[in-house]
Amino acid sequence: MSSTPSDLEIARAARIRPIEEIAAAAGINADALEQYGRYKAKIDPARLQAPAPAGKVVLVSAMSPTPAGEGKSTTTVGLADSLARAGHKVMIALREPSLGPVLGMKGGATGGGYSQVLPMDEINLHFTGDFHAVTAANNALMALVDNHIYQGNQLNIDPRRMTFKRVLDMNDRALREVVIGLGGPTQGVPRQDGFDITVASEIMAVFCLATDLADLRSRLGRITFGYTFDRTPVTVADLGVQGALTLLLKEAVKPNLVQTIAGTPAMVHGGPFANIAHGCNSLIATQTARRLADIVVTEAGFGADLGAEKFMDIKARTGGLAPSAVVVVATVRALKMQGGVAKNQLTEPNIAALEAGVANLHRHVRNVEKFGVPPVVAINRFSSDSAEELDWLLAWCAAEGVPAAVADVWGRGGGGHGGDDLAALVAKTVAGPNNFRHLYALGLPVEDKIRTIAQEIYGADGVDFSVPALKRLADIERNGWGGLPVCMAKTQYSFTDDASRLGAPKGFTIHVRDLLPKTGAGFIVALTGAVMTMPGLPVAPAAMRMDVDGDGNPVGLA
Amino acid sequence: MSSTPSDLEIARAARIRPIEEIAAAAGINADALEQYGRYKAKIDPARLQAPAPAGKVVLVSAMSPTPAGEGKSTTTVGLADSLARAGHKVMIALREPSLGPVLGMKGGATGGGYSQVLPMDEINLHFTGDFHAVTAANNALMALVDNHIYQGNQLNIDPRRMTFKRVLDMNDRALREVVIGLGGPTQGVPRQDGFDITVASEIMAVFCLATDLADLRSRLGRITFGYTFDRTPVTVADLGVQGALTLLLKEAVKPNLVQTIAGTPAMVHGGPFANIAHGCNSLIATQTARRLADIVVTEAGFGADLGAEKFMDIKARTGGLAPSAVVVVATVRALKMQGGVAKNQLTEPNIAALEAGVANLHRHVRNVEKFGVPPVVAINRFSSDSAEELDWLLAWCAAEGVPAAVADVWGRGGGGHGGDDLAALVAKTVAGPNNFRHLYALGLPVEDKIRTIAQEIYGADGVDFSVPALKRLADIERNGWGGLPVCMAKTQYSFTDDASRLGAPKGFTIHVRDLLPKTGAGFIVALTGAVMTMPGLPVAPAAMRMDVDGDGNPVGLA
Repeated sequence: MSSTPSDLEIARAARIRPIEEIAAAAGINADALEQYGRYKAKIDPARLQAPAPAGKVVLVSAMSPTPAGEGKSTTTVGLADSLARAGHKVMIALREPSLGPVLGMKGGATGGGYSQVLPMDEINLHFTGDFHAVTAANNALMALVDNHIYQGNQLNIDPRRMTFKRVLDMNDRALREVVIGLGGPTQGVPRQDGFDITVASEIMAVFCLATDLADLRSRLGRITFGYTFDRTPVTVADLGVQGALTLLLKEAVKPNLVQTIAGTPAMVHGGPFANIAHGCNSLIATQTARRLADIVVTEAGFGADLGAEKFMDIKARTGGLAPSAVVVVATVRALKMQGGVAKNQLTEPNIAALEAGVANLHRHVRNVEKFGVPPVVAINRFSSDSAEELDWLLAWCAAEGVPAAVADVWGRGGGGHGGDDLAALVAKTVAGPNNFRHLYALGLPVEDKIRTIAQEIYGADGVDFSVPALKRLADIERNGWGGLPVCMAKTQYSFTDDASRLGAPKGFTIHVRDLLPKTGAGFIVALTGAVMTMPGLPVAPAAMRMDVDGDGNPVGLA
Repeated sequence: MSSTPSDLEIARAARIRPIEEIAAAAGINADALEQYGRYKAKIDPARLQAPAPAGKVVLVSAMSPTPAGEGKSTTTVGLADSLARAGHKVMIALREPSLGPVLGMKGGATGGGYSQVLPMDEINLHFTGDFHAVTAANNALMALVDNHIYQGNQLNIDPRRMTFKRVLDMNDRALREVVIGLGGPTQGVPRQDGFDITVASEIMAVFCLATDLADLRSRLGRITFGYTFDRTPVTVADLGVQGALTLLLKEAVKPNLVQTIAGTPAMVHGGPFANIAHGCNSLIATQTARRLADIVVTEAGFGADLGAEKFMDIKARTGGLAPSAVVVVATVRALKMQGGVAKNQLTEPNIAALEAGVANLHRHVRNVEKFGVPPVVAINRFSSDSAEELDWLLAWCAAEGVPAAVADVWGRGGGGHGGDDLAALVAKTVAGPNNFRHLYALGLPVEDKIRTIAQEIYGADGVDFSVPALKRLADIERNGWGGLPVCMAKTQYSFTDDASRLGAPKGFTIHVRDLLPKTGAGFIVALTGAVMTMPGLPVAPAAMRMDVDGDGNPVGLA
């Protein structure tokens, strides 16, 4: 075995306990537990004998991501393990991985090193089938819509103004732009179309924001999938299939229980895109975890400018949550990249670059405070970090008055004391006062909500709306959707809408090119650039390395 | 409540036992059981402590199907329940329902009345995710193929000669004929394409014929998905992704355990099309059931001319099975339709029509004997059947020397003595001698295999091959595929290839218009007419009636 075992090797070597033991230790009554294999289970919130949600929420977010890697999920797992080790009743709430990227570039997305959720291979493959259920519900809707058009189109749907696509949980470039319904009068009505990846489906966002089954049904009914020839929005309720879609999702909405390598209970449930959606695990999972644990450690996609802002203004608002702390994950490597160092130079100590790049962390930390929530900086240690660099960064945080700790959760895991300092800081922080507030009121006009986010969080001078975006703003007001929160789709690599501008840029404008009303999920997506909603596979897909060994064990997940 | 409760009402009123109780009673060690919710489980054959397969196989087949309905699955369940009641150690092996038709016309496919497998709603919806896994494996393959073409096409694949499609488990007419890869050089390589329903995927057939995980991997590797520009077949192994596809299927291939209303254990696993594939549940499920039970009751799609023949010549040959009896399900109603009575006249007693239509049953029964296996006729009783008609039919069977019994498995279920007579006949039959033989040797040329089936089973004078079919026959021999068995794709409604010719026609020719080599599944499909591999939705899809009630219970499955 090599000196650095792979994530899969570490995961397979770990001692994994039967899920009913994890459930019992977490206080879950057997009646509410539905096993899916030996190490996975669904929890039925309706049968759970536990009080109303009361656990404190710790959101793990990050500085702006770079190709150097930040390790947000790894930190989430390691922090929770360390809190558990310190005697806190803790639970994790994480997103489920999408199969497409697992087969494409990533090879897996369940933390890393000694801070992983298990069973790593099953979570990364089909898990409990939730994403397949979302795919089926999404595609049932579109089959029913195209059938409605084919059978006479009583609703007068304009096939050229469809705003909803079919989906697959696959990286499949060839399906981005297609023409369907070919073959003549018995085969359908031809129209231009395309497929998204399942995590980009509005049904995934609906799934993750629903408070219960009844709310899921209402939200599904409110989805606008297109417009009539006279430009009236057409909803799922107009078609009358919200019941069937709810039926297809009724088991999937029950949150999934798994465990970390250290045995901490983890809810892994739902996984909407972090650009055209809000990028957090399901609200039902977070709330169920808050019924069972005193502290729930959860995360949001991308950096704090996107993930934390959406968590606060969309998810926390929908669920009536008030987060008690935001952990901002930073690494010496990533800060040096923000300071202008190339990826192949990152192993060399460089205090000057760190000093330049820390401006990025600074803005994220100050942004968190704008929500009235105390930030904690987690310095996720890499083996190439020098003691001098780590000390400089800790000193900078101290001077700024921000609690900070170095965490070695990848190399040692929560079980190996790698996150003890971080856990102590977080425990102290959540015990303190909480003045949580949203960044903007829902009553503001949509364009002002966007301006508020751009100026307060990104540091922009202002917002420039394209002509189509201005037209869409008027449509949104006319259709009565102006009271919805905003979901920004912006590059995660920069505070600006230009991915190449690192650090903490000033003197820029955010360009909104279009707006997408997601009336089921309940937000308006503001597009600031091209958003890829169907990834492609690389030259050498991860799938090429995957296999099953002679004993049926997985090979090549990483 | 109405006097005739729906299948869903009966299913929900039934007492259902925890699946671990059913498993324990069936002799399944806890270590081999993987629960999926409270009432479903997967069995790991590798961990099962049970002897090699030895249980006797009873195949339930039928006369030629009519719109009057035959109740093959209902009879399978009722027979097994009655055998269990009589003290036999029995297990059922059935196909899983496909979601597309459930949402479309059927509303469900798990038996009927008091002879159903439970939990009816979960089996009809996502069950344990097997079909979703097949969908994912199929579509991963096609994403990898189109990516290969896009990334330089080292294998020299001709995009115009692709023989494999993407699939969805959905009735989606608009996807039958599509153009993919549009949008310019960064989006893919345009080509004409289409989607099939998941049950039509060759991967489903492979899944159902594999003997174990290693055999599954080999078969996946042997799938031919297209041809090069110089017309050489290209396989999954050429692309090098059989490992990834196996990994995606490794949990799904474990057979699923459920129970009937009467508590009989049932393996419900896999479900390939009965026209372009062999139409039986997985071989792994049948063999696992044979390790646990003395009698395994299983079924095959369509009438005995298609289902039983394929069971004998494809599945039984692959698995080394020797069926001990074939139950041929017949109904008075269906026989009268075969005798020329219209569907709306079936409730009127009509011995003359019965006498005319029984020729259809006669040919099926004699066909079964050609495989050296004794037939048993199950007369599935409908409330409109007159005593005179039932007596006439029993007398006819007696005169022909064929054991026969009336079964009332829908109305009374196996638990209500509705199948006692049938069970007694079947038990007696399987205790007798067995001279099982295949209809043809694999060494025969493909065209002679087809001729043998057409003449011996269908009663045709001969076979006429189209010019393209003759060309394809030559290709098949050249590519070394001539030793594979044949899988006939013919209308299920007639012994001929013309659906309107009922009864037992004579003096006809079978027309083979094309041949499809399925080198992974290991058979050559002979197409005798148009085969619909992607169904459409009707004017009023079953989905429109489906919903979830206030307690989260399903509504509208039928």
